[in-house]
Amino acid sequence: MAALSLFLDVPLTREVNWLLDAYREDPSPDKVYLDHRGRSCWLAWVCPTVRQTLLQIANDPTLDHEYLPVLGFPEFTRAATELALGRESRAVIENRAGGIHTVGGTGAVRIGAEFLWRWYNTSSPTPIAVYIAFPQWGNLRCIFQDVGFTEIQPYHYWDTVRLAVAVEGFLEVLEVWSWLELCQVPLVLNPSLFMKRLFPFFDVPAQGLASGDLDRDAWALRHFVAQGFELFCAQSFSKTFGLYDERVGNLIVVARDNETLVRIRSQLQKQVMGTWATPASLGARVIATVLNNPALLNKCLRMLAEKIMLIREKLKEKLRILGTPGCWDHLTAQSGTRSFTGLLSSQVAFLEKHKHIYLLGNGQVSVCSINSHNLDYVAQSINEAVSSTEGRAQGLSWAEME
Amino acid sequence: MAALSLFLDVPLTREVNWLLDAYREDPSPDKVYLDHRGRSCWLAWVCPTVRQTLLQIANDPTLDHEYLPVLGFPEFTRAATELALGRESRAVIENRAGGIHTVGGTGAVRIGAEFLWRWYNTSSPTPIAVYIAFPQWGNLRCIFQDVGFTEIQPYHYWDTVRLAVAVEGFLEVLEVWSWLELCQVPLVLNPSLFMKRLFPFFDVPAQGLASGDLDRDAWALRHFVAQGFELFCAQSFSKTFGLYDERVGNLIVVARDNETLVRIRSQLQKQVMGTWATPASLGARVIATVLNNPALLNKCLRMLAEKIMLIREKLKEKLRILGTPGCWDHLTAQSGTRSFTGLLSSQVAFLEKHKHIYLLGNGQVSVCSINSHNLDYVAQSINEAVSSTEGRAQGLSWAEME
Repeated sequence: MAALSLFLDVPLTREVNWLLDAYREDPSPDKVYLDHRGRSCWLAWVCPTVRQTLLQIANDPTLDHEYLPVLGFPEFTRAATELALGRESRAVIENRAGGIHTVGGTGAVRIGAEFLWRWYNTSSPTPIAVYIAFPQWGNLRCIFQDVGFTEIQPYHYWDTVRLAVAVEGFLEVLEVWSWLELCQVPLVLNPSLFMKRLFPFFDVPAQGLASGDLDRDAWALRHFVAQGFELFCAQSFSKTFGLYDERVGNLIVVARDNETLVRIRSQLQKQVMGTWATPASLGARVIATVLNNPALLNKCLRMLAEKIMLIREKLKEKLRILGTPGCWDHLTAQSGTRSFTGLLSSQVAFLEKHKHIYLLGNGQVSVCSINSHNLDYVAQSINEAVSSTEGRAQGLSWAEME
Repeated sequence: MAALSLFLDVPLTREVNWLLDAYREDPSPDKVYLDHRGRSCWLAWVCPTVRQTLLQIANDPTLDHEYLPVLGFPEFTRAATELALGRESRAVIENRAGGIHTVGGTGAVRIGAEFLWRWYNTSSPTPIAVYIAFPQWGNLRCIFQDVGFTEIQPYHYWDTVRLAVAVEGFLEVLEVWSWLELCQVPLVLNPSLFMKRLFPFFDVPAQGLASGDLDRDAWALRHFVAQGFELFCAQSFSKTFGLYDERVGNLIVVARDNETLVRIRSQLQKQVMGTWATPASLGARVIATVLNNPALLNKCLRMLAEKIMLIREKLKEKLRILGTPGCWDHLTAQSGTRSFTGLLSSQVAFLEKHKHIYLLGNGQVSVCSINSHNLDYVAQSINEAVSSTEGRAQGLSWAEME
């Protein structure tokens, strides 16, 4: 037996969420974490309807704790898939769309990416390129790298000057490549023939929380399905229902026909067997109950969407009252759980160093991390950061936003 | 956009648990599934102490549903690691052993296998061989294949004639290779020097259920730790506590020193981020509560071990009363949740075809699948199978057992 470790060459890696690590190590009682990665919204806030459902299920003496099937809880995957695609979707009616219950949205992306590496990558004479929406691309890039992809590129959909969607640039890229959220792009099948053969992979982490309307938030996905694309969609319900710790995700597969769907699912099932065998059940049971009851579902979503917009409005109002330089209308013009504040990286650094407030260098914050306990402190700190440095950011280059 | 599916080449795979599929599709009300894969023991039976703890935690209004850290619930991984290694273990005292909370035992094997492929496989001039204990090797082999290993061999520890551990053969193989459960073996570092450089990877799915004694069941693992080996150990708590559907596993890492442990954990953390991000919490909270309370723990385990032995005794007694040919003492001479019945593959086929009873062709059954509802039917059916064919198996070749 060797006296030295077998793992002398294994390097220490610190790439994993240094922002959260810094926050956790900060002893200040005032500290605030404004990023979404690794932390939920509204600590200790779960929609009351969801909490009640959870208690009912946990207290059910008839519930056995048998393993779920490999592909998960069928009532959940069916309801989740119909929520995203719509019950009237042709793909649903033609029985060529189906879900795989995964360990959170990350698990859905992972299983999907592995499948694509094995079965989509094979016939290409050149490496398949994966395009990932830039501001969200951190962990997604790691997953695609992990499974084997080497050509991974960001694409940009955000106008960093106007702090709004960059429609023109977005359309320009669409004309060349076509994609959405994260997606795989053209194979050069023949050097003289540049044929598009793209596969869109949507990431829908909080359907209904952007606009407050489930159908409106799913428009882009449904549009691609209606155009006849085959695609994947990773869904997560952590943000929507507050059960962050139960890791409930779904990988939606839309295939050309039912026979193709069956073949794809059989391979995904094999992958799941070798990764986590079967997913955990409690969270999926709770969410399936809510999804299958439209009244419960709408109540939950309305409460959440209103909460998010209220926080945006309150923060804007506080900054107005404090006389913070710049215009903060973008806070309420944007929707959803994340907001680009437009803060400069120097202002972000000021907040971290002097105020124990942690957010990404590009100024993006998780709106849901702001609550009644920290709102005043966050607004006051932003005011100080902006007033004591060079004023609100009027625009950042993409390079600066990384 | 192509009119044909992008996935014309994806084959349908039916490799995944055809036995369970056949059972599920069988419309007979008498059907019984006697394999352990994909099904739990004692449907609807959870140790009352565990069920009570689950209710307390689910009902706790102060519990937020925040994400767990990437490596899981620390109270759980610490208690689970100490349960396996012992609190007095040198590795624990020297702070060079630690756990990673995983999605079940499968998740622990997967994350560990991926790590070994990346970091243990690199310096070898020839492919690393992975040796896996034969009767359990089905899904484990798939996992090691999935992550990239190509040299995967079974090893045998079971005497198929005496239906007991094959001590002599076991020792012979140990002298050549050394391993336990599943393990990686010699690198040829120099063609003229055949140096052992092995890494044991234990799989402990039900500590305490084999002998009814936690320490006794962990003897082999602790022995290797005491000898100074670096190793991995995949733990699962599904069988022990009945919470099959909450997927609670732990990957124990024992390293040469604390600094090596920290480096290894940092890489495992990165892997987990790209696989399921963080594990689900409820099951781990329940199990941590039980593990950290010795009185609760011993009560649960004693109840389970007694239940298992009672089933073995009852089945043997029924077969004796029925006058079934052959000696069935091995049923109670063996311990643990699985039993080699010694049934011939023709008898197994008889049971499936005529009795709707599903078990592996090698005659191995999950003892826990037998309960008061099906005991009489199972015993009567075994009696018919043995009486109507060529008598109890006196031995099977390893090839026949696959």
